[in-house]
Amino acid sequence: MTSESEPQKKAFQVIRVSAPGKVILHGEHSVVYGKRAIALSLDLRTRLTAAVGGDSVSLDLPDVDIKKTWPIETVMELWKNLGYTKDEKIKTLTEEQSHFIRSFLNFGEGITDPKDLAILSFFHLYISILHEPLPISITVGSQLPTGAGLGSSAAYAVCLSGALLHLCDHIDLSKLSLPNSHPDILKTVSEWAYASEKIVHGTPSGIDNSVCTYGGAVSFKAGNIEPIHVPPLKVLLVNTLVPRSTKALVAGVRERKERVRAVVEPILTSLDAIADKGLEILCSLKNANVYDEQVAVHEALDELIDINQALLCAIGVSHPSLDKLVGIAKSHGLHAKLTGAGGGGFGIVVVSPKITKSAIDACCDELRQSGYDVWCTSVGAPGISFHNDI
Amino acid sequence: MTSESEPQKKAFQVIRVSAPGKVILHGEHSVVYGKRAIALSLDLRTRLTAAVGGDSVSLDLPDVDIKKTWPIETVMELWKNLGYTKDEKIKTLTEEQSHFIRSFLNFGEGITDPKDLAILSFFHLYISILHEPLPISITVGSQLPTGAGLGSSAAYAVCLSGALLHLCDHIDLSKLSLPNSHPDILKTVSEWAYASEKIVHGTPSGIDNSVCTYGGAVSFKAGNIEPIHVPPLKVLLVNTLVPRSTKALVAGVRERKERVRAVVEPILTSLDAIADKGLEILCSLKNANVYDEQVAVHEALDELIDINQALLCAIGVSHPSLDKLVGIAKSHGLHAKLTGAGGGGFGIVVVSPKITKSAIDACCDELRQSGYDVWCTSVGAPGISFHNDI
Repeated sequence: MTSESEPQKKAFQVIRVSAPGKVILHGEHSVVYGKRAIALSLDLRTRLTAAVGGDSVSLDLPDVDIKKTWPIETVMELWKNLGYTKDEKIKTLTEEQSHFIRSFLNFGEGITDPKDLAILSFFHLYISILHEPLPISITVGSQLPTGAGLGSSAAYAVCLSGALLHLCDHIDLSKLSLPNSHPDILKTVSEWAYASEKIVHGTPSGIDNSVCTYGGAVSFKAGNIEPIHVPPLKVLLVNTLVPRSTKALVAGVRERKERVRAVVEPILTSLDAIADKGLEILCSLKNANVYDEQVAVHEALDELIDINQALLCAIGVSHPSLDKLVGIAKSHGLHAKLTGAGGGGFGIVVVSPKITKSAIDACCDELRQSGYDVWCTSVGAPGISFHNDI
Repeated sequence: MTSESEPQKKAFQVIRVSAPGKVILHGEHSVVYGKRAIALSLDLRTRLTAAVGGDSVSLDLPDVDIKKTWPIETVMELWKNLGYTKDEKIKTLTEEQSHFIRSFLNFGEGITDPKDLAILSFFHLYISILHEPLPISITVGSQLPTGAGLGSSAAYAVCLSGALLHLCDHIDLSKLSLPNSHPDILKTVSEWAYASEKIVHGTPSGIDNSVCTYGGAVSFKAGNIEPIHVPPLKVLLVNTLVPRSTKALVAGVRERKERVRAVVEPILTSLDAIADKGLEILCSLKNANVYDEQVAVHEALDELIDINQALLCAIGVSHPSLDKLVGIAKSHGLHAKLTGAGGGGFGIVVVSPKITKSAIDACCDELRQSGYDVWCTSVGAPGISFHNDI
C-alpha cells in the first residue's frame, strides 16, 4: 500500500464491524472477593458502520438518541491544539490532553451521562488511534439494551477500536475470517477497548472488553483473563424489567458477609468451585460431538446453574421476579439463573439440545405473559467480526 | 407409700401427660455429614390418658385407627412366659424376649406398618417399665400428622414412657411443674423413649426423643445432644401436601456431593455455620426482653432462615411447592424454609413480633387458597407435661 493510493482508498471506504454483548455465567459477586468468574459472549450484537469521506466527523447512535457532527476543520484545530502534527502514529493521551478534549466537548470532569461518555470515549479513540484527522461518518446500532450489565459499552468500544485501527491500517480485520483468527489482532482491539472502557467505568475488570472482542467464553480470576473457545449455546435471555442498583447489591453482600462471615465465606468458596467446574464443562463441550454426549454435558451445566442460582439467593441478591422466572423455567424443564448483579435485572436460561422447540416456545410464552422480555439468542457467539458484504 | 395402699391407689388412678412434636430449624441433610442440627419442640401435642383398673390392657389410638384390648390374664401369661416373677423392677429385654413379644402379637420380624410398630413399642415399654402386669386403659390422641418427620412417634414414646414410669413410681411427673424441672426425670423419660424409638426407627439419632421430652430446643452435633431453653416462638407450620421419600432425598444429596464435591462440601460447611449461629441467636432470645431487642434477634433469625432455605435448594432438596411457599411468605414480609427432608413435606415460617396479625392472617389465607395446610402454632414449647386437672 503506497502513501499515494491511501487517501484515495480511504475517501471511499465503508466498513462494517460488529461485536457481541456479554453475560456472566458464573461468578457474579464472588468475583469481587477474588473468585473465578466466567463470562460468555452474547449474540445480541452491536454493529458499526464507518464511512470515510465528506467534510466532517459525525457520530450517529440512533438507539440512544445521539447524533453529533463536528466540521473537519474544528477537529483539525483540536488536533493541532493537542500538540499533534498531521501524521502522528498511535499515541497515548496525557491527562492534560484528556482534559482538553473534555473542554472541547463542553463536558465537565465528573460527567456520568452515558451519552456524554459514549461521545467522550469515541473522541479518545479517534484521536489516539488515527494518524490524522479523518472525515468520517460513524453509525452504531445495537440489539443490546444499555446499562443492563450486558456489555453494551464494551461492544461499542470494541467496534469503534476495531474500525479505527483497521482504517489506519494498524490491523487488518479482513484476516479475522481466516482460521485461527489472529490473536495479535484481537489482543490489540481488546486493549484499545479497555482503554475506552476506563473512560466510562473508571476501573473496569477487563472481562467485558475481552469477551466482546474474543467471543466464546472468558475466564477471569484474580486479574487473569483467559479466552476460551466454546461452541454457541442456545439461551433465553430474560429481562425482569425490575431496576436494580449494582452498587447497593454489592454492598449488601459485603454487609451479609460481615454479619455472618462463617456462613458466607464457604458460599463464596462454593461459587468459586462452581466457576471452576463450569469452565471444565464449557471446555468439554467442544468434544461433545454426538447428541447423547451434548445432553450429558448440558445436564452437568444445568445442575451448576441451579446450584449457582441458589447460592446467589443465599447471599441475598435474588429477587421475587428472578425466583419466579426460575420457577417458570423449571416448570418447562429448563434451568435459569440471574446473570449480573441480580436484584432484578436479567436472568439467563441455557437450553439443552434435549429441550423441544415446543417446550422452549411454551416457556417463552409464559414468561412474556408474566411480564418478562425474552430474547431467544445464543452465547459463545463470535467476537468482533468484519462484514465485507457491503 | 406402703405396699398395702398401692394397689388401692393404682386401681383408681387416671393420669394425663402430653408431649410436643419437633421441627428441624437448621441442619437437615448436613447433619448426615456430622454438621450441627437444631431441633425445636413444636406445640402440636400428643396427649395420653392412662386409666388404671379393669380387667384388661387396652391401647386406643383413634387418630390412627388402633383399638386393641388384651385380657389381663393373657398379659399375665405373657409376663410369666417371659420368665418374670410378679413383682419385677425395671428390666432390659433380651433379644429372645423381644422375639417372644413379637410372636405374642403375631408380628413377623420385619414389620414396617406404623400401627404394628406403635403396638409393639407400647408392649416393650409396658413390660420393661412396669413391675407387674397392670390392668390399664391407654388412649392417645395427637395434633401431629404422622409419618411427617414431625416427631409423632417420639412424642408417643415420650408420653408412654413418662406415664408408665410415673405409674410404677419410678419418677414423679407432678414435680415437673416445679421450677427447674428435674433434669433426672427428663433424662429417664428421654432414655426410655429412645429405647422405644429404636424399635420403630432402627437407629434413631436421639434428637426426636430429646426435644419431645425436654421441649425448647435441642442442639445435636456428632452424637452430642444438648437441650437449650428457648422462649416460645410463634410459627406457621405449612404442609405442602407433596409426598416425599426421605431416603431418596438423602441419596440425592450424596450423589450431588460425589459429582461436584468441591461445590457441595463448602455448602455443608456453611450449613454447619448457620446452625452454630442459629444456636447463638436462640440462646440470645431469652435475654431479649424489650420489643426492639426481640425484633433485632428475629431479624438475624430471618436472615439465617433465608440463607438456610437457599442452601437446601442448592443441594437439591427443595421443591416447587416449597419455593412457592417461600415466595408467598416473602410477599407478606415473612421468612420460610423447608423443615425436615424437603422435596415437598413441610415448611416452617418463624414469625417476628413485628409482623402484624393481619399480615399473618393474609399469609395464612393465601397459603390455604394455594392448597397448603397451615397451622398457626409455636415452637420452643414445653416438653413432657403432666396434667393433673382431671
